[in-house]
Amino acid sequence: MHPPLFARMQELRDLTAVIGLASWDQETYLPRKGDVARAAQLATLQGLYHERLVDPRLGEWLDSPHTTGDDEVAMVRVLKKERLRAVKIPGALVKALAEAQSKALSGWRAARDAQSFAVFRPFLERLVALRQEQADAWGHEGERYDALLEGFEPGMRVKRLLPVLEDLAQRLTPMVGKLEAAPKPRDIFAGKRFEVDQQWAFTMGLLEAMGFDLEAGRQDRSTHPFTSGAHPSDVRLTTRLFPESPLSAIFGTIHEGGHGLYEQGFPPELARTTLAQAPSMGLHESQSRLWENLVGRSAPFWTYFYPKLQATFSAQLGGVPLADFLRATNKVERSFIRVEADEVTYNLHIVLRTELELGLVRGELQVKDLEAAWNEKTKALLGLTVTAPTHGVLQDIHWAWGEFGYFPTYTLGNLYAASLWKRALGDITGLDAHLARGDLLPVRNWLREKIHRQGYRHEAEALIRAVTGQGLTDVDFVEALRSKYSALYGVAL
Amino acid sequence: MHPPLFARMQELRDLTAVIGLASWDQETYLPRKGDVARAAQLATLQGLYHERLVDPRLGEWLDSPHTTGDDEVAMVRVLKKERLRAVKIPGALVKALAEAQSKALSGWRAARDAQSFAVFRPFLERLVALRQEQADAWGHEGERYDALLEGFEPGMRVKRLLPVLEDLAQRLTPMVGKLEAAPKPRDIFAGKRFEVDQQWAFTMGLLEAMGFDLEAGRQDRSTHPFTSGAHPSDVRLTTRLFPESPLSAIFGTIHEGGHGLYEQGFPPELARTTLAQAPSMGLHESQSRLWENLVGRSAPFWTYFYPKLQATFSAQLGGVPLADFLRATNKVERSFIRVEADEVTYNLHIVLRTELELGLVRGELQVKDLEAAWNEKTKALLGLTVTAPTHGVLQDIHWAWGEFGYFPTYTLGNLYAASLWKRALGDITGLDAHLARGDLLPVRNWLREKIHRQGYRHEAEALIRAVTGQGLTDVDFVEALRSKYSALYGVAL
Repeated sequence: MHPPLFARMQELRDLTAVIGLASWDQETYLPRKGDVARAAQLATLQGLYHERLVDPRLGEWLDSPHTTGDDEVAMVRVLKKERLRAVKIPGALVKALAEAQSKALSGWRAARDAQSFAVFRPFLERLVALRQEQADAWGHEGERYDALLEGFEPGMRVKRLLPVLEDLAQRLTPMVGKLEAAPKPRDIFAGKRFEVDQQWAFTMGLLEAMGFDLEAGRQDRSTHPFTSGAHPSDVRLTTRLFPESPLSAIFGTIHEGGHGLYEQGFPPELARTTLAQAPSMGLHESQSRLWENLVGRSAPFWTYFYPKLQATFSAQLGGVPLADFLRATNKVERSFIRVEADEVTYNLHIVLRTELELGLVRGELQVKDLEAAWNEKTKALLGLTVTAPTHGVLQDIHWAWGEFGYFPTYTLGNLYAASLWKRALGDITGLDAHLARGDLLPVRNWLREKIHRQGYRHEAEALIRAVTGQGLTDVDFVEALRSKYSALYGVAL
Repeated sequence: MHPPLFARMQELRDLTAVIGLASWDQETYLPRKGDVARAAQLATLQGLYHERLVDPRLGEWLDSPHTTGDDEVAMVRVLKKERLRAVKIPGALVKALAEAQSKALSGWRAARDAQSFAVFRPFLERLVALRQEQADAWGHEGERYDALLEGFEPGMRVKRLLPVLEDLAQRLTPMVGKLEAAPKPRDIFAGKRFEVDQQWAFTMGLLEAMGFDLEAGRQDRSTHPFTSGAHPSDVRLTTRLFPESPLSAIFGTIHEGGHGLYEQGFPPELARTTLAQAPSMGLHESQSRLWENLVGRSAPFWTYFYPKLQATFSAQLGGVPLADFLRATNKVERSFIRVEADEVTYNLHIVLRTELELGLVRGELQVKDLEAAWNEKTKALLGLTVTAPTHGVLQDIHWAWGEFGYFPTYTLGNLYAASLWKRALGDITGLDAHLARGDLLPVRNWLREKIHRQGYRHEAEALIRAVTGQGLTDVDFVEALRSKYSALYGVAL
């Protein structure tokens, strides 16, 4: 590759890494009063990043890149695409979006305080209009939402995604009905306290078992768990600890650990290049969901780890059988709040949001009608009647950030995870037996070889197809739920 | 100020803040394997900083800055000077220096392992030659060292500094002799252990008492204590904890706390400008030394805090009288290692280094003769015979970093601190009584008003002169030592 082009690519990746560090710090160690200064520093870094990306010289270098080998061709392709998207958006729109996002965030908070969607409405209208404008500037073939989706899930299109989501909803709704009718798991945590230092030690043990390299990464506490990967040698996870139950920390850590293993697994030769990243948010999420749900909520996994958890909290869990614990960690219940939803109902929350934001972006749904539409869909998909907007249309921060096209990546993650897991079960001899011995490395190593080491050489669905033999499908996911939950709940699904 | 100029100044300050954050993180939380990636990120940030600083457009803006008010004039003056120094150094020299520094650092480590100055010699020769070249590129009036000193202590000159240092050495040598002849303080720490968590809690209490705002700053652990001030609202200190004695943590925290109060004290209206920084390393050091030595090693201070320390470590210190503790914290002893030297002998180590590096930069002393010169001066100034180069010429990392002109700022800090303290004693009624009640805020507030709030509006010595009525002098420092140590040791000094 032309040396100035290679150097600029590395510079951009380093800036991304530093932006990641400053954001991680903001959520972990930044002194309270440092917030305003940090926002200015981040804006400066992002401004520099943008300036270096749209730099016309970079455009020239990308047009005659002098690449050697497939990897360099792929690096250039990824960078060129990113640059083209940036160049297409006029500076005035970038600025208008930043301002609208900042105001919408305050507006959203005010609306939540006032329990009134009307307070948020004008801000959301502005954001929808600006995103429509942006989608048109990026360009699309008649489906604006595609242009937005492209920012999170490159290559994915509404016409491919929507039928899968609709099919998924149709299969899940009756399943949820049957599980809701089954006897509820008993609440094994009620009235107990779980010392947070012991929870912490337990989660660190889980990371070690997963093969997360603690010399190339770390875990800290934050209000909302997240993963920040500056470089395969520096990957940071966070978790949160609540004394009333260890599940939040445990599944938070396993989930972020899944993301973290992905970031640590990019091969060294791709570090500081555009290929040392996941091809999509959905594929990234497939890694966290696979670990959290398919490994972490499975019977084989807890066969090994539950006795350890009991030893850690013997007074609280010593008398609770494994079966009760497993049912408690796989409780299915219709609920209002997406982030608290279980594995089965979760995707119904996503279908709801995706259909609504698609309507908004298409202009088929007006913001003034959003709350009614939300509540109606909640009734249809989940059978619940929304009584407060903070449990409904005002619950998520994504729209206040101006993010449309992000929500479906959560479900894509679940679906990809299930397809990968099915393949892993075929590829890894005695996988369940490995888990039941606490040996998680076969899973990590399989994912490393099949997914992590590929970086961004291919787009998400192409990679899934190469590994599993088929592209996006909800069949494996639904089958995995059916098999697991019929066994757990003794119900034919 | 011309808006693009103001914006660029803020951008440069933000980049400095982020470089500070990434460096702080490197010493506190960076995973071990992340070192190489971090070095690349820092090089990228520093490269961007340099590029934005030498940008010809910035030069044009600085030539017609459209300033309003004295502060803006001062901001432009500081930025212009920084830019001019950067512009004067050719890119090839910047690169050669970076390479030579990196190699010299490895060479220095290898030389220490081999206990052989000869291993380090070629690297140091290269660095001296490059710094001479750089000094000539910056320009000077016949004294190359002045051009280097300017990077750390703007406005200071050899002809002003050297007579003060020589006078100081002449006054200190007999004082050290008399104190060495006095009975040694008893070793009150021998064979005791001080739990590090309790040490930590004690140091946090000290920071609070000093008025360090823990919502606009924090303290962490690191191998070598340091202070990093990204913004007055985000100032980070580190300390280190050794179980065999609490003194390292206590005086480390007080020292860094002094630096930290300075950084927190820059007025909000100067934040993100070139005036939100100390005018010199020496003036910055005056703040840490004032707190560490003039407050923190004083009898009034410990009148209040020693009973608290005894309560924390009752088994270890309950039976040790205050007088013994005070003598132990003010032990005077000729020693080889600068960083372990006491308040009285410390500056002799600095005089030694300053005279030697001045000789190197002037070309009057050759690197091949440095070790012999070091050992000879150690004999002359400290009366000690060096037996191993790690206790001699290879002990400090500064020369391996290629830093010549840095050492004297430590002594400037001590001298400025003593002059400021003398003035504070005159200005603050009942200062000793305040300290003896644990009330440290009058000191912080006085420094805030006189020094911190000024930022970089004036050069260091001019500010000292404005506050104390006189410029650089060793008289106040020597007088303070004489008064304190004659009382502590019962010796006429």
